[in-house]
Amino acid sequence: MTHPAAAPHDSVRAVEWRGDHLCLLDQRRLPHEEAFIECRDSDEVARAIADLAVRGAPAIGIAAAWGMVLAARNGEDLAAASARLRGARPTAVNLMWALDRMRGVAADAAALEREAQAIQDEDLAANRRMGELGAALIGPGSGVLTHCNTGSLATAGYGTALGVIRAGVSAGRITRVFAGETRPWLQGARLTMWELQRDAIAATLVADSAAAHLMRSGAVQWVVVGADRIAANGDTANKIGTSQLAIVARHYGVRFMVVAPASTIDMAMPAGDGIEIELRAADELLAFGGQRTAVAGAEAWNPVFDVTPATLIDALVTERGVVERPDTGRMAALFVAP
Amino acid sequence: MTHPAAAPHDSVRAVEWRGDHLCLLDQRRLPHEEAFIECRDSDEVARAIADLAVRGAPAIGIAAAWGMVLAARNGEDLAAASARLRGARPTAVNLMWALDRMRGVAADAAALEREAQAIQDEDLAANRRMGELGAALIGPGSGVLTHCNTGSLATAGYGTALGVIRAGVSAGRITRVFAGETRPWLQGARLTMWELQRDAIAATLVADSAAAHLMRSGAVQWVVVGADRIAANGDTANKIGTSQLAIVARHYGVRFMVVAPASTIDMAMPAGDGIEIELRAADELLAFGGQRTAVAGAEAWNPVFDVTPATLIDALVTERGVVERPDTGRMAALFVAP
Repeated sequence: MTHPAAAPHDSVRAVEWRGDHLCLLDQRRLPHEEAFIECRDSDEVARAIADLAVRGAPAIGIAAAWGMVLAARNGEDLAAASARLRGARPTAVNLMWALDRMRGVAADAAALEREAQAIQDEDLAANRRMGELGAALIGPGSGVLTHCNTGSLATAGYGTALGVIRAGVSAGRITRVFAGETRPWLQGARLTMWELQRDAIAATLVADSAAAHLMRSGAVQWVVVGADRIAANGDTANKIGTSQLAIVARHYGVRFMVVAPASTIDMAMPAGDGIEIELRAADELLAFGGQRTAVAGAEAWNPVFDVTPATLIDALVTERGVVERPDTGRMAALFVAP
Repeated sequence: MTHPAAAPHDSVRAVEWRGDHLCLLDQRRLPHEEAFIECRDSDEVARAIADLAVRGAPAIGIAAAWGMVLAARNGEDLAAASARLRGARPTAVNLMWALDRMRGVAADAAALEREAQAIQDEDLAANRRMGELGAALIGPGSGVLTHCNTGSLATAGYGTALGVIRAGVSAGRITRVFAGETRPWLQGARLTMWELQRDAIAATLVADSAAAHLMRSGAVQWVVVGADRIAANGDTANKIGTSQLAIVARHYGVRFMVVAPASTIDMAMPAGDGIEIELRAADELLAFGGQRTAVAGAEAWNPVFDVTPATLIDALVTERGVVERPDTGRMAALFVAP
């Protein structure tokens, strides 16, 4: 648990357009191997999203946008390609948002390519802005706990919650970083620890179950997480375990920050109850790295997101500004032109 | 998530004296293999406790008692043997309790053997009694969530929290059982699911992080857990993650039950703050089954117990009776002869 270094950089590109194909860093193989997948049609992109080769709400939106570029270049049926990409995962609304935005563009490959690039560039800029806004909320000398991976791997670069952590470390406000391992897929252990090490930010891995004990110790002043879909009242769907952290944070007086671009906000969804929560295969819990952990025949329930009620969120950070103690009125104000 | 069967049996013996040696079911190799370790001196027993071949607060107390029998039979230095066994793990007070009880016995092997057998027999009887008392608190048609393993593997047989679940299923009061996988050692996934399957009790494995989402769904009316040490005010040290479950249960109006024999209560410890929390090797979090999960060089913090404040406990079930909403006065009353 040493002091984080003060000079984070950021060179990971999880989703990269290469002129005629989409190159994805295969996140299933990290941190052991930096392997890449080349997608040359929209179906390969849809499969990469469904199989978690690319994951993270903003990153799958960006990948889907490039999937539409591939569809147009290949002369695929654009409506069918869009539907297939949209169905790849149900919870993150950035996927639907990006596909809706692509649908609003003339159906020629060059126009779609410009729009996909704009989505990607805007996401990176949003992350930098959120990093500044979020870090400014954190008092000097703070410890933070994050969950899942919300960094360059999950976005166009820099990250949402991890962007705030990068900015907060850089500004000297954050002096200790803890990452929950994030079962079952271990995004924290496998991805966040890898990203932070590349940036020379010292971080300490904890079991998801150790969060209460950690907060009770006083080592953490903020929990900082991303989001997969935010309802119009501020209720936030994010990686399974997030709502538990919010409840425990409130219990211990630790503050709770959600960091997500406006594209994650689903103003058509009044409250979190309506958000579809993805259930994934039981085997993600029953086995580990191909090695069975539970007895054969065991059953498991594997929801991979949960909903944190807005009432447990102290600050929702977007590139449009910060919403403290979000509710329907304050959320709506975000979308009013200044 | 099918209905649990109504007829639990219980045939697992994790700790068994075989006349001249102690036979331990090696819990590190479950559920893949039912392998046994034969201990022929107290040092082998101490190592089996330290290395988690035998675990669970009551079971390590019983194993340590048999370790003292081996020491006496071998003519070992009894004080040194007792000290070595006592130092094998720091948190579970049953270990110290059993060794203190053995120290009160004449130092001949036959007397020590009778005392160790009494400790083991009394634990089994206590578990049966706690099963009845705990199950009686649970309303018909309830769902329960448990954490770690508190069954036959962790005790002389039947179990503490898992004994209540066995009794509650048998009585038709419990209709759904959920087990948290219990990172990092996966006692829930590896051991509890295995025990329940042997008893034909249907159970569903969940990620530790899914507990809040599960409680929010209404599927669970009680969280039922064991304990490694209970302070005089009712504060309870148990497997890491327990306090988080208690906080979340209170948030959702789910009731919280601790089940432990009186030997787990440390009346010399006024409150939970004083209980030593074992820190284990970072590698338990950084690797899995010999396979590294986090990037090389990653740091981890691995406390394996936490303390649940008495104020979050609705019922503490012992073989001496049930303490509702435990505090120092109600705890002391447990030890007053009726």
